[in-house]
Amino acid sequence: MKVDKELLEAIDFDKGGGLVPVVVQDAKTRDVLMVAYANREAVEKTVETGFAHYYSRSRKALWMKGKTSGHVQKVRKIMIDCDEDTLLYIVEQSGVACHTGNWSCFYRILAEGDK
Amino acid sequence: MKVDKELLEAIDFDKGGGLVPVVVQDAKTRDVLMVAYANREAVEKTVETGFAHYYSRSRKALWMKGKTSGHVQKVRKIMIDCDEDTLLYIVEQSGVACHTGNWSCFYRILAEGDK
Repeated sequence: MKVDKELLEAIDFDKGGGLVPVVVQDAKTRDVLMVAYANREAVEKTVETGFAHYYSRSRKALWMKGKTSGHVQKVRKIMIDCDEDTLLYIVEQSGVACHTGNWSCFYRILAEGDK
Repeated sequence: MKVDKELLEAIDFDKGGGLVPVVVQDAKTRDVLMVAYANREAVEKTVETGFAHYYSRSRKALWMKGKTSGHVQKVRKIMIDCDEDTLLYIVEQSGVACHTGNWSCFYRILAEGDK
């Protein structure tokens, strides 16, 4: 990917103990698909390869999304937020994003509408 | 708001030390506006009032988005993710979401396109 090196260096990993949350949005449908976490290595692998990589907090390891399932995320664009501690990946999702088989991890309504 | 009480009770605040990240998406444009954090009280205030409330990690206090700026977020829907540790607020944003004056906090491109 074409990278803004200054912004890459500016990512504030310290606030989250070496990790930043990554919001993942599908480029076509604009659905929010999931939230995962990335360390510096995961972000670097993502910009190098163009495919989303994250850091698993439970397995304490770098992972490429879809490496085993085939449900990869081709990253079109990475946005950084105002205080540089959160990223937004705009992706082309292959298959589904959620390990449950749902398109998005946000498939359940907790609350809705007016009082 | 009309609440699924079982899902409200199911929110896993422990993983994040009493907080969950909240992704905020505009209902109309479907832009991802910001990521903030909520404790149980902030979620309860949100469903009670229908306006987005968060917990400020720096100020260590509950806050209602837009209370001083007027840039409130009327919450249409709250979604919960598969592992119940992240929320998605679908909102009607008044004014702008970002304290910088930008519509979204994600206004800068860190990386783009193919290699």
